[in-house]
Amino acid sequence: MKISYVIPGPMSQGPLGPREVARRQDILRGWAAPDVEVSVRECPQGPASIESAYEEYLSVAGLAAVLTELEEQQQADAAIVGCFGDPGLDALYEVTSSLPVVGPGEASMHFACMLGRPFGIITVADGVVGPIERVAAHAGLDGRLAGVAVVDTPVLALGENPGETAARASSAGGDLVRRGATVLVLGCMSMAFLDLGPVLEAKLGVPVVNPVHAALAVAEGRARFRMRHSKTAYPVPRKLAAGSRLSSLLAGPTA
Amino acid sequence: MKISYVIPGPMSQGPLGPREVARRQDILRGWAAPDVEVSVRECPQGPASIESAYEEYLSVAGLAAVLTELEEQQQADAAIVGCFGDPGLDALYEVTSSLPVVGPGEASMHFACMLGRPFGIITVADGVVGPIERVAAHAGLDGRLAGVAVVDTPVLALGENPGETAARASSAGGDLVRRGATVLVLGCMSMAFLDLGPVLEAKLGVPVVNPVHAALAVAEGRARFRMRHSKTAYPVPRKLAAGSRLSSLLAGPTA
Amino acid sequence: MKISYVIPGPMSQGPLGPREVARRQDILRGWAAPDVEVSVRECPQGPASIESAYEEYLSVAGLAAVLTELEEQQQADAAIVGCFGDPGLDALYEVTSSLPVVGPGEASMHFACMLGRPFGIITVADGVVGPIERVAAHAGLDGRLAGVAVVDTPVLALGENPGETAARASSAGGDLVRRGATVLVLGCMSMAFLDLGPVLEAKLGVPVVNPVHAALAVAEGRARFRMRHSKTAYPVPRKLAAGSRLSSLLAGPTA
Amino acid sequence: MKISYVIPGPMSQGPLGPREVARRQDILRGWAAPDVEVSVRECPQGPASIESAYEEYLSVAGLAAVLTELEEQQQADAAIVGCFGDPGLDALYEVTSSLPVVGPGEASMHFACMLGRPFGIITVADGVVGPIERVAAHAGLDGRLAGVAVVDTPVLALGENPGETAARASSAGGDLVRRGATVLVLGCMSMAFLDLGPVLEAKLGVPVVNPVHAALAVAEGRARFRMRHSKTAYPVPRKLAAGSRLSSLLAGPTA
Amino acid sequence: MKISYVIPGPMSQGPLGPREVARRQDILRGWAAPDVEVSVRECPQGPASIESAYEEYLSVAGLAAVLTELEEQQQADAAIVGCFGDPGLDALYEVTSSLPVVGPGEASMHFACMLGRPFGIITVADGVVGPIERVAAHAGLDGRLAGVAVVDTPVLALGENPGETAARASSAGGDLVRRGATVLVLGCMSMAFLDLGPVLEAKLGVPVVNPVHAALAVAEGRARFRMRHSKTAYPVPRKLAAGSRLSSLLAGPTA
Amino acid sequence: MKISYVIPGPMSQGPLGPREVARRQDILRGWAAPDVEVSVRECPQGPASIESAYEEYLSVAGLAAVLTELEEQQQADAAIVGCFGDPGLDALYEVTSSLPVVGPGEASMHFACMLGRPFGIITVADGVVGPIERVAAHAGLDGRLAGVAVVDTPVLALGENPGETAARASSAGGDLVRRGATVLVLGCMSMAFLDLGPVLEAKLGVPVVNPVHAALAVAEGRARFRMRHSKTAYPVPRKLAAGSRLSSLLAGPTA
Repeated sequence: MKISYVIPGPMSQGPLGPREVARRQDILRGWAAPDVEVSVRECPQGPASIESAYEEYLSVAGLAAVLTELEEQQQADAAIVGCFGDPGLDALYEVTSSLPVVGPGEASMHFACMLGRPFGIITVADGVVGPIERVAAHAGLDGRLAGVAVVDTPVLALGENPGETAARASSAGGDLVRRGATVLVLGCMSMAFLDLGPVLEAKLGVPVVNPVHAALAVAEGRARFRMRHSKTAYPVPRKLAAGSRLSSLLAGPTA
Repeated sequence: MKISYVIPGPMSQGPLGPREVARRQDILRGWAAPDVEVSVRECPQGPASIESAYEEYLSVAGLAAVLTELEEQQQADAAIVGCFGDPGLDALYEVTSSLPVVGPGEASMHFACMLGRPFGIITVADGVVGPIERVAAHAGLDGRLAGVAVVDTPVLALGENPGETAARASSAGGDLVRRGATVLVLGCMSMAFLDLGPVLEAKLGVPVVNPVHAALAVAEGRARFRMRHSKTAYPVPRKLAAGSRLSSLLAGPTA
Repeated sequence: MKISYVIPGPMSQGPLGPREVARRQDILRGWAAPDVEVSVRECPQGPASIESAYEEYLSVAGLAAVLTELEEQQQADAAIVGCFGDPGLDALYEVTSSLPVVGPGEASMHFACMLGRPFGIITVADGVVGPIERVAAHAGLDGRLAGVAVVDTPVLALGENPGETAARASSAGGDLVRRGATVLVLGCMSMAFLDLGPVLEAKLGVPVVNPVHAALAVAEGRARFRMRHSKTAYPVPRKLAAGSRLSSLLAGPTA
Repeated sequence: MKISYVIPGPMSQGPLGPREVARRQDILRGWAAPDVEVSVRECPQGPASIESAYEEYLSVAGLAAVLTELEEQQQADAAIVGCFGDPGLDALYEVTSSLPVVGPGEASMHFACMLGRPFGIITVADGVVGPIERVAAHAGLDGRLAGVAVVDTPVLALGENPGETAARASSAGGDLVRRGATVLVLGCMSMAFLDLGPVLEAKLGVPVVNPVHAALAVAEGRARFRMRHSKTAYPVPRKLAAGSRLSSLLAGPTA
Repeated sequence: MKISYVIPGPMSQGPLGPREVARRQDILRGWAAPDVEVSVRECPQGPASIESAYEEYLSVAGLAAVLTELEEQQQADAAIVGCFGDPGLDALYEVTSSLPVVGPGEASMHFACMLGRPFGIITVADGVVGPIERVAAHAGLDGRLAGVAVVDTPVLALGENPGETAARASSAGGDLVRRGATVLVLGCMSMAFLDLGPVLEAKLGVPVVNPVHAALAVAEGRARFRMRHSKTAYPVPRKLAAGSRLSSLLAGPTA
Repeated sequence: MKISYVIPGPMSQGPLGPREVARRQDILRGWAAPDVEVSVRECPQGPASIESAYEEYLSVAGLAAVLTELEEQQQADAAIVGCFGDPGLDALYEVTSSLPVVGPGEASMHFACMLGRPFGIITVADGVVGPIERVAAHAGLDGRLAGVAVVDTPVLALGENPGETAARASSAGGDLVRRGATVLVLGCMSMAFLDLGPVLEAKLGVPVVNPVHAALAVAEGRARFRMRHSKTAYPVPRKLAAGSRLSSLLAGPTA
């Protein structure tokens, strides 16, 4: 089984560089089931990191292009969107039909609800609190959300001092536990790849869901059992159904 | 008072052409209060029409560019997003601070709730039912929504045969009334500029909210009374706050 | 355009006297659009001030009498109920048909939802917290309400020491912000006419909705675009439809 | 134990006359527990019948006057408001402190929820559907409400042809069962005193809650066990707490 | 009228012994209406006390056996389940048809909602907080629940030091009041039989619902007025309807 | 990785016999990932089939005994409860700590929400509709549930005529699609092992979630990534924490 993990921007050309992309692919391969081959794909165009709703929307066109290519060329049995905010997930469901596309945000929240209630989310900064709350609402799980707390660190700086990041995440998680959270979710893929779960579980005494784990479990399940998304709920855009190419949907000078 | 109505794509270069843009500006000026001057702006880049969540997301970057320019150059006291789906409204609130930005979808739904309950929405096609339901949820009004019904006509064809469009809208509206709607909303700006309200009201016996009317009322009110959106709820994206230009947030070859 | 602002009791005969009625009319005229003429009307019979659900109900008959007279004699294009608690708004919708009647409570809350989320309400005293929460529920917006906080001052004393009132409102507003409010609403017309918004915005850093502003914007919009309320949702009372006069609906010795 | 059943208007002076008042008192005495003495009280002033939200509000002052008199003179251990719409129940809780006041609407809905789910309500006419839905929302039980259906008969005519009324109630109840109701509530006191429950139960196969039964059970329980309402939730109106008389709260010429 | 109070285990053979069973029967008889005879029944098999969801489920078979026997032999006009958690109430509704079965948890919560809002629940230990929250959700009243606080004492030790128990209950109740509760519920039958209500009411200034009181009021009402539960909502299990005995539904070696 | 599938009763001694148990184990092994070994376990004591809430509760003690044995003897990395109604899942979470226990009902519903909205459930008979609705509420997903429809066939007869069962399931599923379901769930393990998904998907045009698939995906994910349930949310019962054996929690003659 082949799973593609799609980073929503040209990470290898940014400050983290190809080394971080390779590191994430190694981690993904270590975490996946033995019969699963994970490949990391980058979107040629996209935000350097996602710290706002605006940057989420900026990433949708690039993700759609990569995902439809994966589907058309049958390069993957499932694909994971590489951002916890599940940017444009409804649109990505619209433009694909047979390829299972997995949003790690909603996948994590669904797993969290199976572990305890209510759950809390630790994320990077104020700018994504609103977008994450909207993912919870989209998943229908906002009623179970105790809160979202932030470590208040730029995404690209999270890995510079993992100890500091863990300490801040632990403090944010402690706040959420005091607000009633009985299970926590790491609300950022960069935090997920730092594998902060075990240290937080030891400190805070509650389970911590890693969105990469949750997304892999959902992707493997959907691929293995061919659980496709509903085209009634997410119909193919009319112009695509009528034969237009995805890239032609954006009109204007540079399209 | 100056209000800018921003069309999320290059309409004048599409099949409807500059004539339709001019027609809409005339209508807007006729509907606005005497002391209000409305100007229509087009986004140089954007979808030809919006019939899916995907096309909504495609329109966000163009809208953000125009709105931030309006704000920086103080060309408007308020701006209306020219799509009923309120594409990327949270992101547009993020990138602006002093300019009131109005989403006609949520403006209409709020007015509808002040006229009756529950309310129903008549829109163009299946592809935007899900996105419109999400606008209702974002506005916190999904509990009042009796349903969304469609005329099943491409956006760009709505004006070709206004009688046919009115008949289909009346049929869709009748369905909604039977499902309990006590007030209806025209869920598409192209339907709004056909001014279908009076004929539907006469036929169906319930009030019909025109999203252009609702958006103008909200825009005038927010401009007159300087009701700015909350920057606590919609903070400026971190990279912009740190001095980056909006256009630099999209990394990659053609950004 | 003519808008009537209806005070739900004989204010000019109470401690505030005709001077306060005149002061409010001046403020309303200053705030309305240039083509709008606002007149203040008092109900001959009604509570001296409204500080409980009981006094809200006491005000309904007087409001209904004035509003139906305005409608019958075509003296106004829209009317604003002069109490934040929107007393008997459903009944006032029942007894009118063509006159737009605006409840400043729900108008403010709808505007607040367009500025941020969640929102909080600053009001006068414990006695109206429950009634205001019911306005939020009636508007369908209780899910967005962070809380209601009080300045704990009798309504008629609010204007005696505006500095003290502002300080208490600021303290109540600060509490609400700590409870998550990203936008505030002044939950009392007497506070609205003290124009506490700007000073609170400066102190607390969040937008503050003035219910007079919100009610004017809704009234102007509904009048300009003839947005009538739904008679399906709020049917004319059977006895009135059968020809009874409003005043005859109350049977008994002094009716 | 003494229970007072308070009719919200001068029924004995209306078309139904003293005979109907006496008939209801007989029925109440037959239904109450052996140690309970029920007395019927009429409000000297109030609507002839309640068929709209407006008439509900008209009845509040009269009810408050009677209930506070009952409390002050210790003439009752509990009182039942004689209208299914629970008119002004929050206000009636405000103006009383030690006397349990029972709203038959919410009492019935709470019992219905203990018998099955969802429940439906059969009432008289369109004019009270909205008010009854608001009682359900006030009781926190709107999520369990399958719907409200009407027999479409004026209140004062319900008893003229009991067979016809029963047939119409059965038809309305059948509609509700098809919409999912597993238990029904008679949503009008005049229907309750026709004792339509047994015939509807036999026809429709679901339990039918009689609001007089439910109100008696709640009144007896609250009186026996001194279950008073919360003055934190329903504080005494400030002016009353400061010594004003109830009747002085309405200012103006005839107050 | 005969009401059976069914203790979900062999209490007289446990540490509290027959004396406590007799004491509870005396209290019940003192609290019931004059024409009501209350008998206490014990389940021969069941948990010694209920301090977890697991022990709730363990008690269902024993309760079902006793309740169906009461129904078949017409030994009672109504029965009260002797555990605040309403263990298996839906199943107990399934296996009975004419006998009203009352869950004191939901009965108390419905009464609490008629006294104030929101309400809080004081219970014994962390282990039943989740189960009690599920009773509130089952009753449809979770939206009114301010919280559940614990005295943190084993059920069987509550009566050893009533003063200590009252002090702890008062502290827990104070917490709930600070979290917004305007009325409290004693969330454990052993606390109910200690009659902690009056002392807590005096200390905390809010009404306190005793679940024995609430259950008696509901049981008396349902018996007096023959309010049966809905067999549409709680159908007889298919195998029982086909003639199997209740005891044969558990297959296996010792069934 | 070892996964145990626990049948909540002695199926091999019932009418389906050891052949059906073996058939299910074969199917499970065929569906699991290559590195996963699935074993079927039966509970020595439990209902012959589960067609009511009552039979669900009857199965809890047997399930708890098997699951705690699996945990203590480290015989499994995860366990699946072999009933769609997730009987006693909260209790099973209480009595285990390190063993992931998976409820196929909630697992399926979470997957359904990731495929479309709203979703519908096809199950066997009226007797389990209520229990399944409570699983949806427990999972927090009742807001996404379009409905539950039944094939109206005894569980043990489902496999006798698979064609008939498929036809009835297709009819029930069609009803749900007309009620708005965009994805369906097979709401019974016996239907799941008939693998009705592909034929229903072909007929109805919407995805169909098989609860065995969903449960396997969740079990594999939770086992692989050691996602344990929260002991804060589901604490160990006090008596067990104090050293009692699980079997001693049921007092009385045959315990």
